[in-house]
Amino acid sequence: MEQEFIRWLQEHVLQSHCAQNQRDSVLLGIGDDGAVLRGGSGKRVHVADAIVDQVHFDLSENDLVQIGHKALAINLSDIAAMGAIAETALVTMVLPRSMSLEDAKQLFVGIAKLASRYDVAIVGGDTVRHDGPLMINVAATGWLDPEFKSSDGWRMNGACAGDVLVVTGPLGGSLSGHHIRFTPRLELAQAIQERVQIHAATDISDSLSIDLGHLLRQSNFGAVLECDRIPVSESAVQRAKVSGISSIDHALQDGEDFELLLSLSKEDLATLKDDVSFEFDLFPIGLVVEEHAGRIVDHQSGETIDQKGYQH
Amino acid sequence: MEQEFIRWLQEHVLQSHCAQNQRDSVLLGIGDDGAVLRGGSGKRVHVADAIVDQVHFDLSENDLVQIGHKALAINLSDIAAMGAIAETALVTMVLPRSMSLEDAKQLFVGIAKLASRYDVAIVGGDTVRHDGPLMINVAATGWLDPEFKSSDGWRMNGACAGDVLVVTGPLGGSLSGHHIRFTPRLELAQAIQERVQIHAATDISDSLSIDLGHLLRQSNFGAVLECDRIPVSESAVQRAKVSGISSIDHALQDGEDFELLLSLSKEDLATLKDDVSFEFDLFPIGLVVEEHAGRIVDHQSGETIDQKGYQH
Repeated sequence: MEQEFIRWLQEHVLQSHCAQNQRDSVLLGIGDDGAVLRGGSGKRVHVADAIVDQVHFDLSENDLVQIGHKALAINLSDIAAMGAIAETALVTMVLPRSMSLEDAKQLFVGIAKLASRYDVAIVGGDTVRHDGPLMINVAATGWLDPEFKSSDGWRMNGACAGDVLVVTGPLGGSLSGHHIRFTPRLELAQAIQERVQIHAATDISDSLSIDLGHLLRQSNFGAVLECDRIPVSESAVQRAKVSGISSIDHALQDGEDFELLLSLSKEDLATLKDDVSFEFDLFPIGLVVEEHAGRIVDHQSGETIDQKGYQH
Repeated sequence: MEQEFIRWLQEHVLQSHCAQNQRDSVLLGIGDDGAVLRGGSGKRVHVADAIVDQVHFDLSENDLVQIGHKALAINLSDIAAMGAIAETALVTMVLPRSMSLEDAKQLFVGIAKLASRYDVAIVGGDTVRHDGPLMINVAATGWLDPEFKSSDGWRMNGACAGDVLVVTGPLGGSLSGHHIRFTPRLELAQAIQERVQIHAATDISDSLSIDLGHLLRQSNFGAVLECDRIPVSESAVQRAKVSGISSIDHALQDGEDFELLLSLSKEDLATLKDDVSFEFDLFPIGLVVEEHAGRIVDHQSGETIDQKGYQH
């Protein structure tokens, strides 16, 4: 089955959607022991993340194309959080023995559609059958253009006291559907890289409070949040009606939003806001401060906000 | 648990064994959304392969350090089969919920020891807990030195009529233990890259007959094998005593030998044989021929050899 599947990948999906061999940097794609890529200029970002049935999705409920989409999207979200342009992906599919070849192809269609949208070359990977749950691992690379404002990439450890913390979209309630359909923020990341420096960044995968906590500890600073400025998703509002916790707490504690969290100077944020060609929403939610190292403090109450979220 | 494990990885293993931050090409390692690597000169090889409990190993029988070793070794074998120098690895561990943190660390120790031996920087990855079998995926990169004799890498499709086919060690019976302990042929690959051109190469993972078949179909040629020259492992001899098939058939059909299969000119093979500083065994087993496209023919009997093996 592996051979038939690989042939199908080569013949039907890669050529039509991904145009892997048309990419200058990909000298040899799927079908050999490995792919060969040009070294080239600029730096490269390497990421890997897996999704597993019953942990990150539910095979009995979720659409196969969307499951495939998510497997690649979470990795492209990491590429975006590094401020890079997505370039290649290696896809490992561990499939339940009972899954039909047709269903396996649908998973790959979800991956290939998203890859095509961002010109990501799928350069190889592995497929395995086993008596266990569906698992998809993607290892992706991205490119840091030497012309970028932060050509070393956006790290977690560079936040400065006085920076504004911004998020790139409404948060919370992602498990209602956003987590499997979201669009990774690659276009936004590139648009920012062409305009201003970002001091620190991460994507919100565990939760706003947890991921902000990581960023603060790596940067050795604290944060003061204006919680009423945190953009709350409609799903978080709906969830709050039945969960017994507030929609703001959903925004702070729910996982898998896959929006970006950015730390940048007030001046650079103003530059972006004033730039009519910059067409993305940015929501300022607070400031990086010298005190409270590693902690997040509520601006209104002065209390420390718990760092809670979704730990896989 | 993920955070504690990541901290352990960062503090205890990576610094001592892998020296990831001392590598010139690794600008940012584990701990952020992604790793950042210098672009650099030469071409890069990208590979990914997974191992899964009950398919590629048996958690109830095999040693944890050896399981970790195998997860990286199969990827380094692909890097060697491309004629490249191993450089980085991203490690994804999908762990059964019941596995202790101590056991998970043992898996990683197996990976880190092998990584250290070949100066492979472990630059990131993912860990997930689930209610299912242990799975480890590795995505690795290798480097093709522009000074190498085949600086584009060793592909499957370049065999020439008249080439000698050689293997790099005894074959068959790998499942008796070799499959989980083997040494990837990186040193041999580099020693050859410094001396002569290889026209086509692959590693023997499914079986000699299957992997030679792939190489022949990609190159549009056939092969004539002198079966009595195929090096047969002691395990294959032992297995033949009880299996009812010959030791030669074990060498042709057993999977997971992870020796290299190389196609090169007679002159270049003679150059290697005459070079006293080249200290590796090479076993000529037959010739690439214009006829029999995609088929393997027994030199003595003139019959076609079945392409059978271990399909995961």
